[in-house]
Amino acid sequence: MSRPRALSGFPELTPEQRVVEQQVLDRLREVFELYGFASVETRAVEPLDTLAKQGEIDKEVYAVQRVAAEPGSPAELGLHFDLTVPFARYVLEHAHQLAFPFRRYQIQKVWRGERPQEGRYREFTQADVDIVNPGALPAHFDVELPLVTLAALERLHVDLGLPPVLMRVNNRMLAQGFYRGLGIEDTVAVLRQVDKLDKIGPDKVADLLVSDVGVTPAQAQACVRLASISSADASFVDAVQALGVTDPMLDEGLALLADVVRTASEHVPGRIVADLKIARGLDYYTGTVYETELVGYERTGSISSGGRYDSLASDGKTTYPGVGLSIGVTRLLVPLLGAGVLRATRSVPTAVVVAVTSEDQRPAANTVAARLRARGIPTEVAPEAAKFGRQIRYADRRGIPYVWFGAGPDGGADEVKDIRSGDQVPADAATWEPPAEDLHPRVVRSE
Amino acid sequence: MSRPRALSGFPELTPEQRVVEQQVLDRLREVFELYGFASVETRAVEPLDTLAKQGEIDKEVYAVQRVAAEPGSPAELGLHFDLTVPFARYVLEHAHQLAFPFRRYQIQKVWRGERPQEGRYREFTQADVDIVNPGALPAHFDVELPLVTLAALERLHVDLGLPPVLMRVNNRMLAQGFYRGLGIEDTVAVLRQVDKLDKIGPDKVADLLVSDVGVTPAQAQACVRLASISSADASFVDAVQALGVTDPMLDEGLALLADVVRTASEHVPGRIVADLKIARGLDYYTGTVYETELVGYERTGSISSGGRYDSLASDGKTTYPGVGLSIGVTRLLVPLLGAGVLRATRSVPTAVVVAVTSEDQRPAANTVAARLRARGIPTEVAPEAAKFGRQIRYADRRGIPYVWFGAGPDGGADEVKDIRSGDQVPADAATWEPPAEDLHPRVVRSE
Repeated sequence: MSRPRALSGFPELTPEQRVVEQQVLDRLREVFELYGFASVETRAVEPLDTLAKQGEIDKEVYAVQRVAAEPGSPAELGLHFDLTVPFARYVLEHAHQLAFPFRRYQIQKVWRGERPQEGRYREFTQADVDIVNPGALPAHFDVELPLVTLAALERLHVDLGLPPVLMRVNNRMLAQGFYRGLGIEDTVAVLRQVDKLDKIGPDKVADLLVSDVGVTPAQAQACVRLASISSADASFVDAVQALGVTDPMLDEGLALLADVVRTASEHVPGRIVADLKIARGLDYYTGTVYETELVGYERTGSISSGGRYDSLASDGKTTYPGVGLSIGVTRLLVPLLGAGVLRATRSVPTAVVVAVTSEDQRPAANTVAARLRARGIPTEVAPEAAKFGRQIRYADRRGIPYVWFGAGPDGGADEVKDIRSGDQVPADAATWEPPAEDLHPRVVRSE
Repeated sequence: MSRPRALSGFPELTPEQRVVEQQVLDRLREVFELYGFASVETRAVEPLDTLAKQGEIDKEVYAVQRVAAEPGSPAELGLHFDLTVPFARYVLEHAHQLAFPFRRYQIQKVWRGERPQEGRYREFTQADVDIVNPGALPAHFDVELPLVTLAALERLHVDLGLPPVLMRVNNRMLAQGFYRGLGIEDTVAVLRQVDKLDKIGPDKVADLLVSDVGVTPAQAQACVRLASISSADASFVDAVQALGVTDPMLDEGLALLADVVRTASEHVPGRIVADLKIARGLDYYTGTVYETELVGYERTGSISSGGRYDSLASDGKTTYPGVGLSIGVTRLLVPLLGAGVLRATRSVPTAVVVAVTSEDQRPAANTVAARLRARGIPTEVAPEAAKFGRQIRYADRRGIPYVWFGAGPDGGADEVKDIRSGDQVPADAATWEPPAEDLHPRVVRSE
């Protein structure tokens, strides 16, 4: 085998980068569990027809088939491309084993055969939180889901030095109620044009609304003006009401969105804004929609999106409406790792290397290591008997802070050296402890 | 969508079973890291030619191809079927970024298109530990690898109530040296017949050795006698030497195997035995070989296997010998979960439900929940305003031990009820803590 080449779109981390990813995933899990979400994993494959989008198999899906399959036989399975479709299937399949409302988080890899480009991956990790319930799902869950997601992202910011985020929220009922209040019937056609706002600008959207959807110029102007409203507090409600449109669905949407922004601002200040131009796959979502930028890395695109879906899962008898958000862990992390913004204080878990100066000391060194490990201190025994300098270089190369000397009958009294300061002190393997900040690798921001 | 059916060979866990799996994976990770192994994940796919075994693609491999691929074009990628082949590729590809000897653990899913049967899965989780080094790898790593594996499995036994294990160890040098010392040239042919011992018995193996390999009846008897030797300490060395065969490679194998058994018995007593009939894919391994049974569940087969391989990875210039073991997490766990031997004390992380008796109390309940979460107590707010009895049933159904009452201006003084005992006491959300054993779900053995 010659040296293998990387596969484009399938990022692989170095051990040091993986330390960062592990701590990110640990923090997400911790916050999700603090909010009472249970962990679920689904199999990587789904029947291809389950992976269909609007009746047609998405071309980006990877089909999976045994090499031993009958030649020419069609593939029946595909790799999941998100965690929502498999979750919907899981809920239907296991409904009799679940307690509803069912709160779950799911952290797994997903696969999409996209053309690789910056910020797009063919294999990537997502971390999803969703709540589903048979029949109806109360509106306060539209408030709770951004809360848990923002709490998780804030934990990454505070604990690990990731950039802060800004979540933009809208509500489809608000927009549709507004259009209806204006006297427009085909509200979905309006949404489809308004969704182009960031790309083509308000004037062209207004033109298209008149030419393609057939609304009046005044209606078109009102639609564009609604989409330009945003606020970090509930003041957007006044701005919308100043447009003079009334409709019960509009009022419901306004109240719900105001509640989301108010509650999130209270619990995670400065991280949420009502932004009435956010559309996000509106064919799919039926209420609140969310998307999230990493401040300073906006060109990465949304690193956490989601919304309310009222027809996620249905077995023909029961429908399970839900609301959920997905954090794009790979999309969030790989640019920061690639730019060297985040790094780990060491590439290995090891806090102590027990030196071995001759091979007959190895059993004694193993005993020292066992004593340290028994108290939770990650410890390696030196790979070869060598002089002190070589043992220190072994530790230094990996960022391991401590080297233990003197294990064994001829090794002299036990001493431990902090190789950063050079301090060497007598130590007892039954009681010595490193400072807490040296026990495990830490994630640091380096700029 | 009607109710979906399970896919045979792709086990999916309930949330409660997943709690057990998570705690198993957490313990494995903890022990691997205590021994200084760094985490690595590799992409799920490898080029199909990398997945080749002895020049031919294994029929069990799943090929992966975009649905959008040119019809009739051959698949180039496949899902990995173990973590050793991808690790070998990872080491070659990233060698310039790694510090050697490189110690890594890897916990990921793997896929095999086998015919589903008891104990065989098409998707399953493996947890591997390996050490590799360019050029040469010292023999003491053959001792360390079973130590870390046994320590990890022992942790599952002590902490989580999994059955204890018995690891069987052999060394290929020992057997080959012995055959050579008997004057047999084609030692690999002998190994291949001896490998059938458990299936066809010693007499038939002896017959085959004479008829197919062409050794003398006396040589055949000696080979069979060697394979019948086993001991939980180093006494097997005397038993082998009593057979009167001498050879330098035999001596080397005996010394190494004795060291493995002696050291493992010292650190993890009663869990290892030298068993000279263990063969385990000897075409692949070049030294020590390991396999491991779950005591009382021997028919599950080996739940942890591995060995020394001297030609794992080579880029043409450098070869990286290694030694490693793999724990079959799914194979280990699914039968125990299926039989109800292991269960979690609850199916959700939640320790406390904050009751809501009217919707206008929800903001106050959110504040109570935020205070509890800030101190690491997993907390949910009740999904709907309801009478006390209904709130208690919500908690009871999920095994949540505590319900918090009185949040909010009209809710009265804050009190917390242990719904198991019925005890209800005044409590302050800024200071109250549940007993440590109630904070997170625990894994218990139920028999």
